[in-house]
Amino acid sequence: MTVSTGITINGDRLLRRLRALGEVGSTGDGGCCRLALTDADRDGRDLVVSWMKDLGLEITIDTIGNVIGTWNVGTGAPVMTGSHIDTVRTGGLYDGNYGVLAGLEVIETLKESGVAPPRPISVGIFTNEEGSRFAPDMLGSLVYVGGLALEEALDTLSIDGARLGDELSRIGYAGSTPCPGPAPHAFVELHIEQGPVLEAEGFTLGAVTGVQGISWQEITITGQSNHAGTTPMNLRHDPGYVAAMLTVYLREIAERFGGDQVCTVGKIDLHPNLVNVIPAKATLTLDIRNTDEDTLLDAEHLVDTFCFQLEQDEGVSISKRVLARFEPVVFDQRVVDIVERHANVAEPRVRRLPSGAGHDAQMLARVCPAAMIFVPSHKGISHNAAEHTDADDLVKGANVLANVMFELASTNFADEKGSVTS
Amino acid sequence: MTVSTGITINGDRLLRRLRALGEVGSTGDGGCCRLALTDADRDGRDLVVSWMKDLGLEITIDTIGNVIGTWNVGTGAPVMTGSHIDTVRTGGLYDGNYGVLAGLEVIETLKESGVAPPRPISVGIFTNEEGSRFAPDMLGSLVYVGGLALEEALDTLSIDGARLGDELSRIGYAGSTPCPGPAPHAFVELHIEQGPVLEAEGFTLGAVTGVQGISWQEITITGQSNHAGTTPMNLRHDPGYVAAMLTVYLREIAERFGGDQVCTVGKIDLHPNLVNVIPAKATLTLDIRNTDEDTLLDAEHLVDTFCFQLEQDEGVSISKRVLARFEPVVFDQRVVDIVERHANVAEPRVRRLPSGAGHDAQMLARVCPAAMIFVPSHKGISHNAAEHTDADDLVKGANVLANVMFELASTNFADEKGSVTS
Repeated sequence: MTVSTGITINGDRLLRRLRALGEVGSTGDGGCCRLALTDADRDGRDLVVSWMKDLGLEITIDTIGNVIGTWNVGTGAPVMTGSHIDTVRTGGLYDGNYGVLAGLEVIETLKESGVAPPRPISVGIFTNEEGSRFAPDMLGSLVYVGGLALEEALDTLSIDGARLGDELSRIGYAGSTPCPGPAPHAFVELHIEQGPVLEAEGFTLGAVTGVQGISWQEITITGQSNHAGTTPMNLRHDPGYVAAMLTVYLREIAERFGGDQVCTVGKIDLHPNLVNVIPAKATLTLDIRNTDEDTLLDAEHLVDTFCFQLEQDEGVSISKRVLARFEPVVFDQRVVDIVERHANVAEPRVRRLPSGAGHDAQMLARVCPAAMIFVPSHKGISHNAAEHTDADDLVKGANVLANVMFELASTNFADEKGSVTS
Repeated sequence: MTVSTGITINGDRLLRRLRALGEVGSTGDGGCCRLALTDADRDGRDLVVSWMKDLGLEITIDTIGNVIGTWNVGTGAPVMTGSHIDTVRTGGLYDGNYGVLAGLEVIETLKESGVAPPRPISVGIFTNEEGSRFAPDMLGSLVYVGGLALEEALDTLSIDGARLGDELSRIGYAGSTPCPGPAPHAFVELHIEQGPVLEAEGFTLGAVTGVQGISWQEITITGQSNHAGTTPMNLRHDPGYVAAMLTVYLREIAERFGGDQVCTVGKIDLHPNLVNVIPAKATLTLDIRNTDEDTLLDAEHLVDTFCFQLEQDEGVSISKRVLARFEPVVFDQRVVDIVERHANVAEPRVRRLPSGAGHDAQMLARVCPAAMIFVPSHKGISHNAAEHTDADDLVKGANVLANVMFELASTNFADEKGSVTS
């Protein structure tokens, strides 16, 4: 077993690059806006690519616009890290950018130290991770692993009506390297948590065990609109009440299942939405997430059963529409162990936790051993100019990344996956 | 005890007048729009006043624009009926109009039959009952009984910015008869139910025992907005969940109290109202009604206590704003008995029920014995072009009104109220 190699990155340099990239598309309030394949995204890419060139990396741009910078050292498939540099409209400084720039920092540190890893090291900038301008999110990494056909991805239309392929060409990032691309030896992504768990529980490092599965449903309840003053309770068919019952039931499911189960009703619309009128209709969304697919299916089944019961009890009709459905991703236990071990060098207590948000690592996990490293997000705030992680934690996370990548480069996995188009 | 006098009104004439008045401000879909003190309201008033003149009634227009047509027969204070002819924007043919025109029909029938009652009979058209253009609703009858100062009422501004007193003058209905006005001997109002109870329970006539008290509150719940995927259940402060708990609790209150208790959450707004974001804020309205003031206070107290508990349990803050608060009105038992007895001549089964909506009769009840007669509303629909009551039921109700008014004119109440400004 390889123990910690004790690599220490240059924190100031990492933080300086984070601030410099944050200036590109700056919103003036400490945040930035670089929606995928806009001029700002191009400017951000140009800046990071210039740093890759300064590092002497071999740079490829593939047909979906993913940029991969590789330090061609050692032999075999590279150990890859990376993330994205596109942002939501109200993006912060760290989401995505941190993972990409920490990857560059790892390479620069290793180069400076004169310690060459036994395999190539590469850093990917994946196209359109946020999905704010083009759906779906995580598009670049999804195409990279063969999960979405290239042509289909290129034909995607943005919220402003532009075709993804045209926008790629326009900003000069329609590359010629084939995509899907080759499977790395292993993939590890460093990211801010975007949730409150680490901070709330007093951890500064997290070993990410997987990504939650997501079930998004839109539920429409149709009842009987009526006068709130003149309609006795026993003659009501009140969609607003039924929506409330369902909201409360969702919390019950989360409490019954425990663990990582989360359930949220974030959106409700009543019609006509007047103080003295029993609504005719209620529309609400259910956001149910779990790291275990069977549990997610159980939750969906319970919701279906409860809705059926509510239809009988309240004389309403309920229809549902699936808005999104992703199965959970379980990261490679061996990579998670390596992450945890190196994190333990910096901190005696490391939190194993699933990611609640989606990340490029979950796509790469389809083709190679993969996992993630989390650092805390202050108050769990993300997708916001107020997104913040203490500088010490940012540096700590990058140190873990460096040591994990080095160990991964030295590790042979028994079941080595060879092909990308799984 | 006076038994039924067996008066039978002319149903065709009543229905003809209802249709003719419905043509004024017709919305072309079977409904009409005569917002208070608009040109359409003036045209409607002009038409009904012309009918009053045809009947030889003595017509007064008071300083708040109430029109009272009196058949000056017999001696003493008149037995009064009446209602309103202003409508909501999407008004039907019967709400208000029915009570006014049935009153005229009663007088015409009595005159034709040659049977003169021992007291004068009068029919009132009260200004701005609906409150759709000027707040508060039931304004004309409220001023009539001294419940709102004349000057204050005249200074009321409409939703379109016009002053009520100016609009009264503009349409020629700023009269000179003093208001508050004299207390009638008794008041009885005939109205469509505007609720589903009579139809649902198979009744065609209702003896209205009172008007429910109303408590309208707007509840604002402030919590902590967060990512739906990354925020564990135990770290949430979710205003949407708290709003649902309150909605469900309101139903529990209604079921626990039983009887006429109704509770409604008709309006909910979440912010930011997105599928994957725990809301920062929820605003909802509570509509609580009961015929008993103590019970209404109990319900409000339970809501306060529950909100306090929710604040503790969920780590949210809850504020409330009173939107409206009216105490319940109990109609005069003797008048209700008389209504019920005459209704029983037409139907063996008569439903005693409270009114869930407000009516001019509840204002007149402050100064004289008063009650109401209800006929069914098909499916409880009102304030809508689809408002419908079977012609047979309309005629049946007017017959009851005629006989009730005749008996009231023959009845002396032991505790006769003499003054208006109670």
